[in-house]
Amino acid sequence: MENHIKSWAEVAPQLVAVAAGRMPADCVIRGGKLVNVQTREVLDWQVAIAAGRFAYIGPDASHCIGPDTEVIEAAGRYLIPGLCDGHMHIESGMLTPAEFAAAVIPHGTTTMFTDPHEIANVLGLRGVRMMHDEALMQPVNIFTQMPSCAPSAPGLETTGFKISADDVAEAMAWPGIIGLGEMMNFPGVVNGDPQMLAEMAATMRAGKTVGGHYASPDKGVAFSAYVAGGAADDHEGTAEADAIARVRNGMRSMMRLGSAWYDVESQITAVTQKGLDPRNFILCTDDCHSGTLVNDGHMNRVVRHAIACGCDPLVALQMATINTATHFGLERELGSITPGRRADVILTSDLVTLPIEHVIARGKTVALNGKITVDCPHYDWPDDARQTVRMGKVLDHADFAVHAPKGANSVVAKVIGVVENQAPTEALTAELPVVDGVACGQGDTYQIALVERHRATGKVVNGFVSGFGYTGRMAIASTVAHDSHHMIVVGTDRALMAKAANRLGQVGGGVTVWKDDAELALVELPIAGLMSDSPAAEVAAKADAMVAAMAACGCTLNNAYMQHSLLALVVIPALRISDLGLVDVTRFEITDLFEENT
Amino acid sequence: MENHIKSWAEVAPQLVAVAAGRMPADCVIRGGKLVNVQTREVLDWQVAIAAGRFAYIGPDASHCIGPDTEVIEAAGRYLIPGLCDGHMHIESGMLTPAEFAAAVIPHGTTTMFTDPHEIANVLGLRGVRMMHDEALMQPVNIFTQMPSCAPSAPGLETTGFKISADDVAEAMAWPGIIGLGEMMNFPGVVNGDPQMLAEMAATMRAGKTVGGHYASPDKGVAFSAYVAGGAADDHEGTAEADAIARVRNGMRSMMRLGSAWYDVESQITAVTQKGLDPRNFILCTDDCHSGTLVNDGHMNRVVRHAIACGCDPLVALQMATINTATHFGLERELGSITPGRRADVILTSDLVTLPIEHVIARGKTVALNGKITVDCPHYDWPDDARQTVRMGKVLDHADFAVHAPKGANSVVAKVIGVVENQAPTEALTAELPVVDGVACGQGDTYQIALVERHRATGKVVNGFVSGFGYTGRMAIASTVAHDSHHMIVVGTDRALMAKAANRLGQVGGGVTVWKDDAELALVELPIAGLMSDSPAAEVAAKADAMVAAMAACGCTLNNAYMQHSLLALVVIPALRISDLGLVDVTRFEITDLFEENT
Repeated sequence: MENHIKSWAEVAPQLVAVAAGRMPADCVIRGGKLVNVQTREVLDWQVAIAAGRFAYIGPDASHCIGPDTEVIEAAGRYLIPGLCDGHMHIESGMLTPAEFAAAVIPHGTTTMFTDPHEIANVLGLRGVRMMHDEALMQPVNIFTQMPSCAPSAPGLETTGFKISADDVAEAMAWPGIIGLGEMMNFPGVVNGDPQMLAEMAATMRAGKTVGGHYASPDKGVAFSAYVAGGAADDHEGTAEADAIARVRNGMRSMMRLGSAWYDVESQITAVTQKGLDPRNFILCTDDCHSGTLVNDGHMNRVVRHAIACGCDPLVALQMATINTATHFGLERELGSITPGRRADVILTSDLVTLPIEHVIARGKTVALNGKITVDCPHYDWPDDARQTVRMGKVLDHADFAVHAPKGANSVVAKVIGVVENQAPTEALTAELPVVDGVACGQGDTYQIALVERHRATGKVVNGFVSGFGYTGRMAIASTVAHDSHHMIVVGTDRALMAKAANRLGQVGGGVTVWKDDAELALVELPIAGLMSDSPAAEVAAKADAMVAAMAACGCTLNNAYMQHSLLALVVIPALRISDLGLVDVTRFEITDLFEENT
Repeated sequence: MENHIKSWAEVAPQLVAVAAGRMPADCVIRGGKLVNVQTREVLDWQVAIAAGRFAYIGPDASHCIGPDTEVIEAAGRYLIPGLCDGHMHIESGMLTPAEFAAAVIPHGTTTMFTDPHEIANVLGLRGVRMMHDEALMQPVNIFTQMPSCAPSAPGLETTGFKISADDVAEAMAWPGIIGLGEMMNFPGVVNGDPQMLAEMAATMRAGKTVGGHYASPDKGVAFSAYVAGGAADDHEGTAEADAIARVRNGMRSMMRLGSAWYDVESQITAVTQKGLDPRNFILCTDDCHSGTLVNDGHMNRVVRHAIACGCDPLVALQMATINTATHFGLERELGSITPGRRADVILTSDLVTLPIEHVIARGKTVALNGKITVDCPHYDWPDDARQTVRMGKVLDHADFAVHAPKGANSVVAKVIGVVENQAPTEALTAELPVVDGVACGQGDTYQIALVERHRATGKVVNGFVSGFGYTGRMAIASTVAHDSHHMIVVGTDRALMAKAANRLGQVGGGVTVWKDDAELALVELPIAGLMSDSPAAEVAAKADAMVAAMAACGCTLNNAYMQHSLLALVVIPALRISDLGLVDVTRFEITDLFEENT
């Protein structure tokens, strides 16, 4: 099932014969302007392709044309290498690798370095292997970074499965593994955590690339210690000084433009204004929603944006092609239009606006004028990957009752305060009424529940949240609940919360929004409760309907769904919820729901 | 015996602890200006070293200093990474790896990519292994490129041993092998020669780098076919257009300044004037005589020269550090002063004249102010590597008699015409007298003989050569005789030629010069008949004496000894000599000594 491309070594005799004119090419592209990212030049050169690889580039490929050679007339358009996404999570698109590939191929993305961190939390090494296997079935290059941190916050949450150093060592031998996924446990590395160092060591011993994730503005001693551990890149920089610190320390600075990440403009000035050697800068998306893929693009959007930020188009293209390939040790395999490399090439009539008119991957046309022209095969996801929402019982309103201390008429509860357009939450408190011994939300404070869904324990952890603007009787539930991906339910009505939760148990996961006893929207994500194997446009439409439903419940927050799905992310301050309780992410400890003076 | 440096993975816990300030560094360098080749900047930064690797770089390393930390005061000098030679042959220095290392360490060379092509011709894979093993014993980094072409010209010469594709595959598993040595058989590659393609495939499958050698000005279809075969670099370019063609095709352009190669000035304009991205340009020496190492320098000489040719000093340094490391997949191992990398660093007070004042390799001072401060251990070369001059008998004047056709009073003989400062020879003819049935040299035409010395066959192939200017009774013999390294004897007197040849048989190889029955000079090269295990200064002094002796014999030619040692190089036109006869290197065939009309 693997969409195998023969190695350069295997097909070298054929490539030599084609270049020498002894054997016809499969395909010749002529009349174009070749963007050479090795030299940073534009050349009036032609290209001959055989066995999925470039066989010849030069002023005249006519000696490579035989009677059966497909000749593509570029008609003055530019030939640029297929675009590479240096770091990303497929699950963020709520799509399987196949459907994600189908969505981004028309945008010119032909290579992705993907970290299936989310499924690792749900299905462990086996889930990673499934993603890896579907990735290898695609007509484009999807490399897998072995997730490094599941759980993200040991002791503060329970994941479906854990990733161990032995898992990492085992995965390094898989054909599609390119390195270690972002090492998020940066305090662990700085403090010499043996498991984190063992995972990085296993990766380095395999000759592969350790992905970094240093999400702190501190560029002092802690940053230096993190670098010394072996992380080779970092995409968590947000300011020019972050990017500069990384490249000066021999890391590659990955600058991201995702659906909600805007870290290119603030960092690319390290090149455009400070004049640093651009070779160590790489563009990536990290996280893209299906709607972004359907409406705005993927890596073409990032390159366009980098150019709009003042970057020379050829330098911006290097940051999405050869720089990325070199980083992962693939410079002789892809990332440039030069002999021997995978024949991944885009025809575009403008280097600034970058319309993606014709996409060729491994020598075959895979998209034309925004339409995919190739099949992206689906993995046969097994039942246990489709039935991961294991709640153990049917929930009812009582499961969401927050019992107040005996005799209390009111309580002072800790409340997770959502802040618009910010990842950190506020640790608020609110005095809440008690009715029949049960604490109740009021005003803009409503209930949140973390429903355990990996081990069917039936456990529900309850708390309070504010900031969404919900009014009336409503509930929303989601099995996308970073990073351990239990189920997060938010609502103003306990019976509706139970209905929403049970609904996700029934469909195998996703997002559901309820108002006044009716389901307003449902996004089914049957695979691991994280992904759909439906086309991106369908998923994006359902996600749009879901956002509209949230608005119908009174929510006015920007990116409200993302905020919802991050409420269990117990590595970002200040207050979160997990299956173990309410979590104080300033002190990294479980904390009581009620204030002591209650 | 291996001078082992622990891997980054192994020592990461220690590096993290040092960077974090929990453990003292072995060494701190402060008060210097750090040349950051990753960003192309100069920074007022300090450096902490532990376990032979950089642990910390940044504005202040004082937290890494403990009571036993060695503190080096840079006193305003620049810190540059140790210099890398991207392609070279140790044997060209007539020195063993140990003595070569001892000679170049004070010049700041801390990494060499060496192709033991010469010993491969004499001792085959076993000889390569000996070089490889001595290389790994050194206090600096000497990587071995597995020789690809022994013999260089199959069918036109007989080497001591052959290198097969299986040999290449076997060597790829050795710890010090970094890739395949220059693929000189470029016509073979272009024509799809199975052995050459198999050697390159074995290298690529091992994830290693295929060295190129495309020694032709033709940049058309043949060049393209060569590139498609997989060679990743080339050092045979001599003109700007050569360099540009290589980098445009995704190869790295290696620009060399050796003892007799001057290919930097003519090619570096691709960067300095044409403005190509410099990342794919690398500096190297290819071949340096011991005299160059003693008197002029090594990679410091090349970098200085590149700067003198108008290259920005930081760019020139990149071409001898990070560019080289990246090419060989070692960018996370060496080539920049950044955390985790081998602590190879030079202190210099000027970036243009580049005085090499203090050399540190793997965290230890290895040279101070031009003097080596470290031991370069010798391999225990076995007897069969020291007794490779096997002539089978004692030669006498009769072995050098060129018998004329019966009854001839004179002959018209083909004569190898040496041309000053050019590698190609001319195919000349001369009418020569016959005395007692034996053709004799006269004027500037004298005898040349190729004495078989690998298999003790006693075979002597005789011919004529001109252009050295020899007068009187003289002879010179050398077991350095590229590429198959038999013995080349040139002389005006057959008895002296026999004496010279026998002398080399006695001492195990080298060069000897005779005049009027006295030995004027002797350079003993007992190891494989190619190398001395004496210090470079001693070998250089003897080589100087040898050159003086040649002059005393009437020779006025520039680089006369090199011309002598290349007379059997049956891959460069026009006329050469081998153990199989006189070779027409225009037609690639053995040819008669006498013209047909004789």
